[in-house]
Amino acid sequence: MTQPTRRDLANAIRFLAADAVQAANSGHPGMPMGMADIAEVLWNDYLSHNPANPSWANRDRFILSNGHGSMLQYALLHLAGYDVSVDDLRNFRQLDSKTPGHPENFMTPGVETTTGPLGQGFANAVGMALAEKLLAQRFNRPGFDVVDHRTWVFMGDGCLMEGISHEAASLAGTWGLGKLVAFWDDNHISIDGNTDGWFTDDTPARFEAYGWRVIRNVDGHDPREIKTAIDTALSKDDRPTLICCRTTIGYGSPAKAGKESSHGSPLGKDELVATRDALKWSHGDFEVPQPVYDGWNATDAGRARESKWNDLQSRYAAEHPALADELARRLRGELPADFADAADGYIAKLQSEGPSVASRKASQMAIEAFAPRLPELVGGSADLAHSNLTLWSGSKSVATTDADANYIYYGVREFAMTAISNGLNLHGGFIPYDATFLVFSDYARNAVRMSALMGAHAIHVYTHDSIGLGEDGPTHQPIEHMASLRYIPHNDLWRPCDAVESAVAWKAAIERNDGPSCLVFSRQTLPHQARDAAQVEAIARGGYVLKDSVGTPEAILIATGSEVGLAMQAAAQLGDGVRVVSMPSTDVFDRQDAAYRESVLPRDVRRRVAIEAGVSDFWRKYVGLDGDVIGIDRFGASAPAEVLFPHFGFTVEKVVEAVRALD
Amino acid sequence: MTQPTRRDLANAIRFLAADAVQAANSGHPGMPMGMADIAEVLWNDYLSHNPANPSWANRDRFILSNGHGSMLQYALLHLAGYDVSVDDLRNFRQLDSKTPGHPENFMTPGVETTTGPLGQGFANAVGMALAEKLLAQRFNRPGFDVVDHRTWVFMGDGCLMEGISHEAASLAGTWGLGKLVAFWDDNHISIDGNTDGWFTDDTPARFEAYGWRVIRNVDGHDPREIKTAIDTALSKDDRPTLICCRTTIGYGSPAKAGKESSHGSPLGKDELVATRDALKWSHGDFEVPQPVYDGWNATDAGRARESKWNDLQSRYAAEHPALADELARRLRGELPADFADAADGYIAKLQSEGPSVASRKASQMAIEAFAPRLPELVGGSADLAHSNLTLWSGSKSVATTDADANYIYYGVREFAMTAISNGLNLHGGFIPYDATFLVFSDYARNAVRMSALMGAHAIHVYTHDSIGLGEDGPTHQPIEHMASLRYIPHNDLWRPCDAVESAVAWKAAIERNDGPSCLVFSRQTLPHQARDAAQVEAIARGGYVLKDSVGTPEAILIATGSEVGLAMQAAAQLGDGVRVVSMPSTDVFDRQDAAYRESVLPRDVRRRVAIEAGVSDFWRKYVGLDGDVIGIDRFGASAPAEVLFPHFGFTVEKVVEAVRALD
Repeated sequence: MTQPTRRDLANAIRFLAADAVQAANSGHPGMPMGMADIAEVLWNDYLSHNPANPSWANRDRFILSNGHGSMLQYALLHLAGYDVSVDDLRNFRQLDSKTPGHPENFMTPGVETTTGPLGQGFANAVGMALAEKLLAQRFNRPGFDVVDHRTWVFMGDGCLMEGISHEAASLAGTWGLGKLVAFWDDNHISIDGNTDGWFTDDTPARFEAYGWRVIRNVDGHDPREIKTAIDTALSKDDRPTLICCRTTIGYGSPAKAGKESSHGSPLGKDELVATRDALKWSHGDFEVPQPVYDGWNATDAGRARESKWNDLQSRYAAEHPALADELARRLRGELPADFADAADGYIAKLQSEGPSVASRKASQMAIEAFAPRLPELVGGSADLAHSNLTLWSGSKSVATTDADANYIYYGVREFAMTAISNGLNLHGGFIPYDATFLVFSDYARNAVRMSALMGAHAIHVYTHDSIGLGEDGPTHQPIEHMASLRYIPHNDLWRPCDAVESAVAWKAAIERNDGPSCLVFSRQTLPHQARDAAQVEAIARGGYVLKDSVGTPEAILIATGSEVGLAMQAAAQLGDGVRVVSMPSTDVFDRQDAAYRESVLPRDVRRRVAIEAGVSDFWRKYVGLDGDVIGIDRFGASAPAEVLFPHFGFTVEKVVEAVRALD
Repeated sequence: MTQPTRRDLANAIRFLAADAVQAANSGHPGMPMGMADIAEVLWNDYLSHNPANPSWANRDRFILSNGHGSMLQYALLHLAGYDVSVDDLRNFRQLDSKTPGHPENFMTPGVETTTGPLGQGFANAVGMALAEKLLAQRFNRPGFDVVDHRTWVFMGDGCLMEGISHEAASLAGTWGLGKLVAFWDDNHISIDGNTDGWFTDDTPARFEAYGWRVIRNVDGHDPREIKTAIDTALSKDDRPTLICCRTTIGYGSPAKAGKESSHGSPLGKDELVATRDALKWSHGDFEVPQPVYDGWNATDAGRARESKWNDLQSRYAAEHPALADELARRLRGELPADFADAADGYIAKLQSEGPSVASRKASQMAIEAFAPRLPELVGGSADLAHSNLTLWSGSKSVATTDADANYIYYGVREFAMTAISNGLNLHGGFIPYDATFLVFSDYARNAVRMSALMGAHAIHVYTHDSIGLGEDGPTHQPIEHMASLRYIPHNDLWRPCDAVESAVAWKAAIERNDGPSCLVFSRQTLPHQARDAAQVEAIARGGYVLKDSVGTPEAILIATGSEVGLAMQAAAQLGDGVRVVSMPSTDVFDRQDAAYRESVLPRDVRRRVAIEAGVSDFWRKYVGLDGDVIGIDRFGASAPAEVLFPHFGFTVEKVVEAVRALD
């Protein structure tokens, strides 16, 4: 082979993908074979990145929203010169390999976000493009476009069928994310077959309705047409761009091209041979000729790109030292040095002042106290700003071009909101928060899971946390939600009992930089609780003794949030022998050392009653078979909160009864 | 007042709504005041219903997808002559009233579906319109259109922002649901204020892109324009229709009309007085003059409508007796008389033949065995038909006009799929099933909750139920999902351990007519378990002794699904003292009487180990503080299933060790 053609370069992707799927006997060859030509043009002619440094701040972001085609991305990373070797490709879908079944941001250099759950990668990309826009607004200065890159996203029919694509595309259009470019892999095939039977949208018209620039009818196998389309997408416009590429899934396979049989299964050995013949690819399994490697290698160009940016950055630092320092701090994900002390000061002050407010109000007070020091805190609500209390005095809409734009009016779009939070954080430079009623965390649930899986530092604020929501009724009253969110691995849920715990929860969520936190707040007023300094400090351990017994506890009451006040009243009635444990975060408490946990919940004290206005069974982990739980195991009801709590058994009398009923 | 004008009739809605919200000091007056004129024209001139019989089979379905405007619906029901009194209206949002905060199908005659979680009512309506289409295809005969009614749905900006609106509208367009008419309350206000900042879609163009007929620019306060629009919507067309109505939220309130302040709070006493002045409504709180009542009352017209249909129905029964019987049976929601026996026969045969297959395969076998007797069983998968194994030999796409169309290619739209299932069932005549990977139940989660809240008889099939899914990796491997679904009140989850339990689970789901069932199946092969007849019968109790100890158990192993085989192997190694409990449905087991539960899990036997490839804490309710759980409390990984199970500790050795480690 002398000078490889563009098709040769693209074929390297096709065969690396098909070979790896064949070797794993599992995976999706059709998409990489179909999108290879588009990826080749984008990566070789446009993508601004540096394979030697996948975390170069000003790189373009490339997102594979149709993540089942992961081998496309691994092949690209390998060919471009990332630290993904041919052995890694041979290990496709094997335990602990850099090449898992779907792209995972924590496994593979160059993978920006974990994809596979369809549509979410696209929403992550919208979050990343928003991050770029906001950082540019804040940090760029005349002659110093230190933040200036694009977000490119591949997506398939599946992404476009998912509802989240609607929410995310609508917001991208409204925000005018002109540096976002999406490629639609219009191959007319999804897993069940030809999409005629279930996907008849006029997608270009749909995206135009969202205010996107749409480039139609691009032959996704013709590099010239692809180039023309991308050039058009690069011409300045405030609209995001959708490039509609007609492609053939499994392109090159004589028997399976254009068919769903190439979607999710290996081609088969014979068909792989036939495909090699058809595409005149005479190289062995996983074999890429050197000229093809040379045609792909982006190491030198990438280093030059970053180096040029480093020069710009140095001059920027000379001219705008404070800005440069601040940008660097934010990109490192470090909090301001004085944050922790200031937060502790605020918490101590709250403890001494002792306000009794709804914890959603306490949440807003915490934002108001912390946000002025944290320009990286950007967030909003899904059309419930005045209920979630997410606005603060410094809020300014991100729809503006202001340097301090920081507030996101998400509209009623919980799922995209949460996935956009993930994108904002993964981009770098932001600690995002989002908000809705706790019950509607359901709408966003898989994005919360993705926060946790990816280790995204995102804060999910959920107010109206129980039947305490009152009149809106069972559709709006969470029952199973706290337990279910706690069960998401690596997710921290906090349900504070008063303003002090609320501030501690916010501090913990801001400081927890390797995963998400769900902050759960009440609609209704919660009484302030007295604490000494050691108790205030212990809140951060997730569970602590709020009121101790005299001597070894005769019984322990464990409660969270609005039920802590009830537990304290019941304890007062039950007398000196009763300990009250406030447990704002079971997740955090469970991570404490055994000695601490034993000091709070001594193994031998089995007379335990847990109280939480949610499913009772969750609490069996703390009260066992011998204790009791006052919870709710049916749906709520529409009535004023003060009627509902007694109706569902949350009274001092019932708690006292439950304790006394234990042997 | 002599002859009331249309505006007078509409004003009755406005004031009943505003008065009720004021009395409750809680609720949403703005929407009812804004949509009153549309509702007045629709209900008085078009809606085919019978207030005296809210369950008349051939009634038009009216859905309030923007359910926060519940007082609109209650006012309509009251005025039209349903069993909703003025006292009921005065009790708005009070405990056990017929007028809860959001419309609930189980509380109020005439409410077809529970709404409030935005967008879902619209998707329910799509399911109802599909139900009407399918029943008409099957049962109508020349001259006998016994199934012939429309579905009308009101929706607001919030419904249209939600992703589910995209999924549902797309399917409605693809299916050609020409008798579905949606009214968009285009009032430009959502809770956060003027929607300019977050909702800039060209909604008419968007719906045209879905293949809808769109009627633009209707003045939602001009009865003539509304009538013209509805007349157009009634002209025959295979497309569903969107009528875009420009309205003023809080219409009539001098200070709050057109403002978000009328959205979710009472107008206030003074403003109510001002609004009465402005609209020249001189009547007191909750007072409606008799001529207005007369203008609204639909009792006679409704009785005449149903009576006419009853005549048609009688002639149809004479001409087509078998069809008429079958339609009546289906509308009653009764299973064929021979179903239970036939199912038991199939189950007994399976037990004796003892196939070892993946439980998803066993699920397909059960469908194949049961579906020929159950034409009401209609369902499909979210683009995973060949993975979920939801197709059977009698499957025929609902996109056809065939009488026996019964299979739904949902595309990748889990949320709308599930909400459409709810609509299909609530319409009557169908037991719907839907399917996706268990992990993607997340995408549909709130619709599963709504199945349970509404008591919808829907079957949610979730395959690939654990790390046993293998190579697709952590994005596709459920961990917390089973526990989280079990925590939804009134939801039954089944996770069978072999083909026999799978068939029992399907039978239970088909017979459970007052709520949903989630059927959770494995990707991988599961070994058949030996049982005597009593054990086969006990499966239906949710948990039972699969292998008993000799004498009082020294230890009990509790397992579900793929872990039952492991428990049996470990028990064999541990010896005669160990009991194995198979627990396919904790929900069903927990409903058994105390004696039965004690017979399976004797309170005094505390050496208990639960085994399930999911979060461990869930099982503390059965093993307490003294037992142990072999579960998974972190995310999965991408590797072949046979590598993953030992990697995550699911080995005979670990189970034996865990039992021996208990004191």
